[in-house]
Amino acid sequence: MPGLIERYREYLPVTGRTPALSLHEGNTPLIPAPQLGARLGVDLYLKYEGLNPTGSFKDRGMVMAVAKAVEDGADTVICASTGNTSAAAAAYAARAGLRCIVLIPDGNIALGKLAQALAYGAEVVAVNGNFDAALRLVRQISDEHPIALVNSVNPYRLQGQKTGAFEVVDELGRAPDLLAIPVGNAGNISAYWMGFREYREAGKSGHLPQMWGFQAEGAAPFIRGAIVDEPQTLATAIRIGNPASAHLARAAVQESGGLFDMVSDDEIMHAYHLIAAEGVFCEPASAAPVAGLLRRHAAGALAPGQTVVAVLTGNGLKDPDAALRAAKAPQAIEASLERVLERIL
Amino acid sequence: MPGLIERYREYLPVTGRTPALSLHEGNTPLIPAPQLGARLGVDLYLKYEGLNPTGSFKDRGMVMAVAKAVEDGADTVICASTGNTSAAAAAYAARAGLRCIVLIPDGNIALGKLAQALAYGAEVVAVNGNFDAALRLVRQISDEHPIALVNSVNPYRLQGQKTGAFEVVDELGRAPDLLAIPVGNAGNISAYWMGFREYREAGKSGHLPQMWGFQAEGAAPFIRGAIVDEPQTLATAIRIGNPASAHLARAAVQESGGLFDMVSDDEIMHAYHLIAAEGVFCEPASAAPVAGLLRRHAAGALAPGQTVVAVLTGNGLKDPDAALRAAKAPQAIEASLERVLERIL
Repeated sequence: MPGLIERYREYLPVTGRTPALSLHEGNTPLIPAPQLGARLGVDLYLKYEGLNPTGSFKDRGMVMAVAKAVEDGADTVICASTGNTSAAAAAYAARAGLRCIVLIPDGNIALGKLAQALAYGAEVVAVNGNFDAALRLVRQISDEHPIALVNSVNPYRLQGQKTGAFEVVDELGRAPDLLAIPVGNAGNISAYWMGFREYREAGKSGHLPQMWGFQAEGAAPFIRGAIVDEPQTLATAIRIGNPASAHLARAAVQESGGLFDMVSDDEIMHAYHLIAAEGVFCEPASAAPVAGLLRRHAAGALAPGQTVVAVLTGNGLKDPDAALRAAKAPQAIEASLERVLERIL
Repeated sequence: MPGLIERYREYLPVTGRTPALSLHEGNTPLIPAPQLGARLGVDLYLKYEGLNPTGSFKDRGMVMAVAKAVEDGADTVICASTGNTSAAAAAYAARAGLRCIVLIPDGNIALGKLAQALAYGAEVVAVNGNFDAALRLVRQISDEHPIALVNSVNPYRLQGQKTGAFEVVDELGRAPDLLAIPVGNAGNISAYWMGFREYREAGKSGHLPQMWGFQAEGAAPFIRGAIVDEPQTLATAIRIGNPASAHLARAAVQESGGLFDMVSDDEIMHAYHLIAAEGVFCEPASAAPVAGLLRRHAAGALAPGQTVVAVLTGNGLKDPDAALRAAKAPQAIEASLERVLERIL
């Protein structure tokens, strides 16, 4: 299977001069979840974005952003990020032969989150200040220098991400009735909606799904109706209080007859384990849409018999501590057949 | 793309009663590595097994082993492992609705390595003793109880793993001239050889590749000519001193006119960074075949112009510490345009 730029060329803003950059992103599995589906009374599929090259959906947008940076003559890309964005930027910059600079806030740095960016050879610069300060700086730098900004303000990011919707339709043969998706910076729900609309216009599906976006309770500006200054949730990938794509996301929910809702960290971790029981390991943020479906179902607010797709945005290996928090180190027992059988039978 | 059992059914020991178990394993990308290839003077491709569902090639064998366990009426699978095997066993057991028991040696447990197995709901039992003691116990238990052993002594594991060779031929349209692969327990080199032979017999390729197997210097029984009692290497996935499939692996190398060689941990980490510079993040063991090709090339012992495939067995996210060991925490600088430009321009 070719990469996204080649596969969906006719739907993307590419030209004859756009390089066919690829790490074989996309083409991620749509995995039926029969146990969870039975619990919810729907046909449930998990769109497992954790099998993208750097382990998250960010690769879809980043391959476009970096390819266009090459086309535009940049030799360096820059972003402010401590997480999945920096991993994707670093990987595609390496692949394209560009420098990648990652600005991260303040001196209190969890190096583990940067393992991928560092491995791919990104240059990491820490600045005294918060994330907003770092983002302001990378915007200034890209305005004044031939350095391409690949944060989500880069419009090619959403263009690439919309291919997730294309794949869902290509795989199912039609659009689902309902798409459930985590909402942090709100770009992905906007991109999926764009993709579903474009595919319907192209005659690839006859209808549009309802878009249901789920936030974490401690980081739920859409439900609170206001920016959250200090967002809190263990689902770090959606710990965002002031979503960059808020306007587009509201339009997606409104136009589709969908909704925003929020879920607690406990609900997220409960869903995380139910997803793992289907054999799929995702990061906590990815469990939010399944937690949300469970909450709606418990409230009698999920129509039965629908075809539902939940987007699992990232691989569980991105955050192994989440799996370990619930576990305790097993007490060692004597290495004898009797003792082991006692324990397991 | 369907899973391996469905896709390669005619080449696998499946019956009408074998369940079509799948987490969409296999179908992993064969990524051209133009920079590394130019350095080596060959057409180099990386078979990136890190994009299997649990992040390693083990999923290919485990889907077969667990499907056959279901067919044989087992309701529990068991293995001795602290690494990739336990993750794969736990995932497919969860998917199939079986219990999964993982025996691990002694009380000194690095919980991080078990994050996946725990997340997928495996029951982890620690025993006082070494790995051999744990393996002896799981063999005894599976002999005497309706519990399926899914360690590499299970013959279905290699059957599933041979599909990696099928995919390489399907993608290239022919077998490569040379396959370079890490060697630990020596099952994978044996399985690839089986796959290449079967595909040639089926008329899918006209020739067979040379099989080059690379071990770590501190865990190199094939090169030392003797079992290594206390194997040492940072490439933990190949830290094995007494390979279970030694006989088959020797036959693969001999019949193909190939070779075994070894590489140091420094060479492995050098190759690891060169692979990342192509945009591909693998675990250290996966870098061994590339390190080996670099060593052979430096010795003038790699014929130019060949088509070479290096098998990258696992995802870099399995061992983020390897990426961090070489890195140091960046010193924070003032969040001003001047200071940042000073640093990056």
